Amino acid sequence: MDNQEKYKYLTKINSPSDLRSLKADVLPFVCQELRDDIINELSHNPGHFASSLGVVELTVALHYVFNTPYDRIVWDVGHQAYGHKILTGRREQFCTNRKYKGLRPFPSPYESEYDTFSCGHASNSISAALGMAVAATKHQEDRKIIAVIGDGAMSGGLAFEGLNNASSTPNNLLIILNDNNMSIDLSVGGMKQYLLNLNTNNLYNRIRNCLSATLSGWGLLSTKRKNSILRFNNSLKSMLSQQQNIFEGLNIRYFGPVDGHNVEKLVQTLNDIKDMKGPKLLHIHTVKGKGFKPAENSATEWHAPGLFDPDTGERIVKSKEGKPPRFQHVFGETLVELAEKNEKIVGVTPAMPTGCSMNILMQKMPERGFDVGIAEGHAVTFSGGMAKDGLIPFCNIYSSFAQRAYDNLIHDIALTKLNVVLCLDRAGLVGEDGATHHGAFDLAYLRPIPNLTICSPYDEHELRRMMYTAQLPDMGPIVIRYPRGSGQLVDWKCPLEKIEIGTAREMKPGKDLAVLSIGPIGNSVEKAISQIEESMSGISIAHFDMRFLKPIDKNTLKKIGQNFDKIITIEDGVKMGGLGSAVLEFMAENNFSPKIKVLGLPDEFVEHGSVAELQHEVGIDLEGICNQIKGMLS
Amino acid sequence: MDNQEKYKYLTKINSPSDLRSLKADVLPFVCQELRDDIINELSHNPGHFASSLGVVELTVALHYVFNTPYDRIVWDVGHQAYGHKILTGRREQFCTNRKYKGLRPFPSPYESEYDTFSCGHASNSISAALGMAVAATKHQEDRKIIAVIGDGAMSGGLAFEGLNNASSTPNNLLIILNDNNMSIDLSVGGMKQYLLNLNTNNLYNRIRNCLSATLSGWGLLSTKRKNSILRFNNSLKSMLSQQQNIFEGLNIRYFGPVDGHNVEKLVQTLNDIKDMKGPKLLHIHTVKGKGFKPAENSATEWHAPGLFDPDTGERIVKSKEGKPPRFQHVFGETLVELAEKNEKIVGVTPAMPTGCSMNILMQKMPERGFDVGIAEGHAVTFSGGMAKDGLIPFCNIYSSFAQRAYDNLIHDIALTKLNVVLCLDRAGLVGEDGATHHGAFDLAYLRPIPNLTICSPYDEHELRRMMYTAQLPDMGPIVIRYPRGSGQLVDWKCPLEKIEIGTAREMKPGKDLAVLSIGPIGNSVEKAISQIEESMSGISIAHFDMRFLKPIDKNTLKKIGQNFDKIITIEDGVKMGGLGSAVLEFMAENNFSPKIKVLGLPDEFVEHGSVAELQHEVGIDLEGICNQIKGMLS
Repeated sequence: MDNQEKYKYLTKINSPSDLRSLKADVLPFVCQELRDDIINELSHNPGHFASSLGVVELTVALHYVFNTPYDRIVWDVGHQAYGHKILTGRREQFCTNRKYKGLRPFPSPYESEYDTFSCGHASNSISAALGMAVAATKHQEDRKIIAVIGDGAMSGGLAFEGLNNASSTPNNLLIILNDNNMSIDLSVGGMKQYLLNLNTNNLYNRIRNCLSATLSGWGLLSTKRKNSILRFNNSLKSMLSQQQNIFEGLNIRYFGPVDGHNVEKLVQTLNDIKDMKGPKLLHIHTVKGKGFKPAENSATEWHAPGLFDPDTGERIVKSKEGKPPRFQHVFGETLVELAEKNEKIVGVTPAMPTGCSMNILMQKMPERGFDVGIAEGHAVTFSGGMAKDGLIPFCNIYSSFAQRAYDNLIHDIALTKLNVVLCLDRAGLVGEDGATHHGAFDLAYLRPIPNLTICSPYDEHELRRMMYTAQLPDMGPIVIRYPRGSGQLVDWKCPLEKIEIGTAREMKPGKDLAVLSIGPIGNSVEKAISQIEESMSGISIAHFDMRFLKPIDKNTLKKIGQNFDKIITIEDGVKMGGLGSAVLEFMAENNFSPKIKVLGLPDEFVEHGSVAELQHEVGIDLEGICNQIKGMLS
Repeated sequence: MDNQEKYKYLTKINSPSDLRSLKADVLPFVCQELRDDIINELSHNPGHFASSLGVVELTVALHYVFNTPYDRIVWDVGHQAYGHKILTGRREQFCTNRKYKGLRPFPSPYESEYDTFSCGHASNSISAALGMAVAATKHQEDRKIIAVIGDGAMSGGLAFEGLNNASSTPNNLLIILNDNNMSIDLSVGGMKQYLLNLNTNNLYNRIRNCLSATLSGWGLLSTKRKNSILRFNNSLKSMLSQQQNIFEGLNIRYFGPVDGHNVEKLVQTLNDIKDMKGPKLLHIHTVKGKGFKPAENSATEWHAPGLFDPDTGERIVKSKEGKPPRFQHVFGETLVELAEKNEKIVGVTPAMPTGCSMNILMQKMPERGFDVGIAEGHAVTFSGGMAKDGLIPFCNIYSSFAQRAYDNLIHDIALTKLNVVLCLDRAGLVGEDGATHHGAFDLAYLRPIPNLTICSPYDEHELRRMMYTAQLPDMGPIVIRYPRGSGQLVDWKCPLEKIEIGTAREMKPGKDLAVLSIGPIGNSVEKAISQIEESMSGISIAHFDMRFLKPIDKNTLKKIGQNFDKIITIEDGVKMGGLGSAVLEFMAENNFSPKIKVLGLPDEFVEHGSVAELQHEVGIDLEGICNQIKGMLS
């Protein structure tokens, strides 16, 4: 498609200053072109879709009104920022979005001066923006700082900590609350209900003047009060709607709600409030997927839809017939199976019921599944409270987001050995979501925690057995980590059987070298060994699926120490502190001195690309494993 | 003192059921006795003081009204729970409070069935209590669950996540907001200002009836509205006080404020609301240190005052003349010194200005010190925002509380290499505060994070040099961890000089064995080596102060690998994943095979006691180190 012809305005916008040279009345056309461009690009280069469509007008209005990059826009969760990328000099490269070595999936200060802060994990924008606002004051810069946060992210505790501090530290921060009544799935919690009711209502408008006149007559509208008439009106509004304005309660001036798809109105409102002193919040309403009907109708499905036809909206879904299911699906189905037999089981997810397939439980047994909103820390501590009184919560969190619940796991769960089953989905390299989303650190940060059992399944059958084992009586806290994407087995529905805690499996005997793996990466080891044994006659290589990082199988390690002088360990996680370190520690403590090679992720943030590309880059794909084994044998 | 004579009631209360057999009108006397007992006990066995005095009446009222332990009281931060301990069968043992093998410093489910949940770290009570409330519903138990949370803890994001979820998950939770206008220091943020204004005010009382009649006349008080008259009144109140009721906004029914020192009124109020359905919050006002004048007047000083005279209130402060200062003091003074020369430096603390001595900066340069409230995650991300725009924040967090900011450190700071200096006070064993407070895990959980520099000073001079180095240009994120308590040097004020990042120091040459230490524990190594060399002629032992855990000094490690076949590593942190693992990894990667012994904390939660007692228990005191060295030499 020749964009030059198709887009009258967009092709001329190479930076926000080009946008700012336009007249306000053409902005709706710019928005239309931006929306079309996003739809077209995403139709053949999959990515996050519905969120970016929802903020097209906001994005245009922000770059139009504010002097970016001098002024700072801090996006909260960057999957809404495609329009921002296209307007900030990355239109031509946008076709490389999320691809290996291409544009990053989320805004990144490494990529553009318009990208102000890391924004892969939710709820951090207010804190970061407040820091920038304080820095601007210190430097006596009249810089505007704008945090853009969704209603879902607003349920995260970090956002509240930021709000709470914003109300006491002098600053001129503008917070834009993008209220689309969902995070990835429908947003939950009081905040949702609260926002739902925080609309201008007719009753309010009808009687505002009348009542305020009356109060004036009573002497209740003193000079002091008249100075804060806006706040008074908000108060009045919330009284009438039987809702309270949380933001005003925190001394943050509240404006809105405003239609987030009326770009001219947005520009006008932003111009009205941008020079006001003190912290303020503009509440806008938007529709996820706006301007693309199928996405408007089903925003969760269209959060990251994969390939689709931009004209018909038909999604190009590859048949999964005869292919292994995703690990998350096996988790979701198995959880229901277990819950049907064990009444103590409940499910907890921080805003990811679809992403981790806990929606299966929530549909079949709605009273036993808890979506607590974007609130990983609470998800874990809440699970602890339930476990304390006899329930067995399966709490599922994406590995990289579980970093948010580290203290909760230590202090609230492990210390008192509560029976919480923490399932870490998206562990290891996740692919296109990149540096902020890889579940790279979990094995290393979990291993030092006392009382914890940590395991990772080789395949779907092992996942089922681990889940079964975890819900048996008095198991204490257990972490099961497994990757994004599909497993190995089409016929995944094996019987549910117990695994002895802390036992490894000898997958294959051998004499020249032992490979110790944990998790599904073991399948690549299996292939590598098979290839090498075929090509190098006389060589035999042993393979152990360690299964448990903790407690680690000391009997197996002892045998390995006694029988092998060459060992390779491999894990889909950082090398520092994980399985490799555990094996090194054991061998040192038990006076074995084999040569040990540790494979895993390097000591750097791995960027984005397909999992295959990234595994190749870090040397844990089939080729890399073969090379390492050969190198050690030679 | 003969308690039998002194206490008419207290000595007969061996469990809350004894308390509940009393008539309500004697409760004030019970409170007086309980208060006297706490004052007397604490005067000669130091502990947290002011908090427990503040909740005497609340504690008595709760155990009087509720059927504990069947009903659950969830304390938020357990240093207020001394009265609770005394009333729940631990009066006789209370003299062992915080002592080695004695009563634990904070309530612990391991110690008593009345202690429902871990409560060393703030803000977790609502989440845990909500979990218990859900479990009660699932089990069809009519169990009451009460979370007791202070205004300081309420600023923590976890508390908000809990509130937000409490408002949407069906439950009958009772939250008691103990508002004493401080956490350890004065509480900060919007929540503080908010609570300050959330009092019944005269204006409100005067016109409530009048206005509501008027509104009724206008048809605004419909039947539906009359059903929620309480909420309406709160709304009205907040309108008039120009404050909003956050809790009502989250659909949590709000009661109060009530005088928290009127035990009979508390009992009556609790009885009134205890059977009400749905989540509810009772706001009480208390005074920290209540009933002991010196503490009432200076609650921060009396948070944990040490020994004192119970009659005069005179604190028995040992002279520090001629003794080394505490590490925190050196931090506080040095920060000011650096800030005077480098305008970019600011200080950030999550509610611990006195505890980490950042109050020195805040007094001298109030506009450059930020107490953000109990909000560790925000403290780090806020620091990141400031660093992004050119400031150099020194963010000081107690090591074990920094677990709360793990993701913030990874995602918001390390990923983009922001110049944040994270100072972890109270690293390693902290002594009497016990299992929840030891800074045991930091070295292990920090090491896997890319881009991070991690160091720990041998003594005060090194701390000053590390702080100086950290604020030089373009240093990226640096963590400096140091312990609670005093250092080594009386004459601590050395010149501020740069340390090369990633360089170790050879403290002493040797040939038979090399000891590698990090942090002040190196001083014990120095003594141990000296003792052993004196007693074993011909033996010489090398000692290296590694200084940097990351980047680790590869040149030094290479020399050690080449020259020694016996190595001991020692750190005041968990053995799994820390310095020992780093050395093992290096030696394996570089084909050295010395025998390596790793010393540090074991894979279990270490309980409380003096640091000396605990170091002895885990084998890292002078004696333990000597034994290990001798064992390896023999």
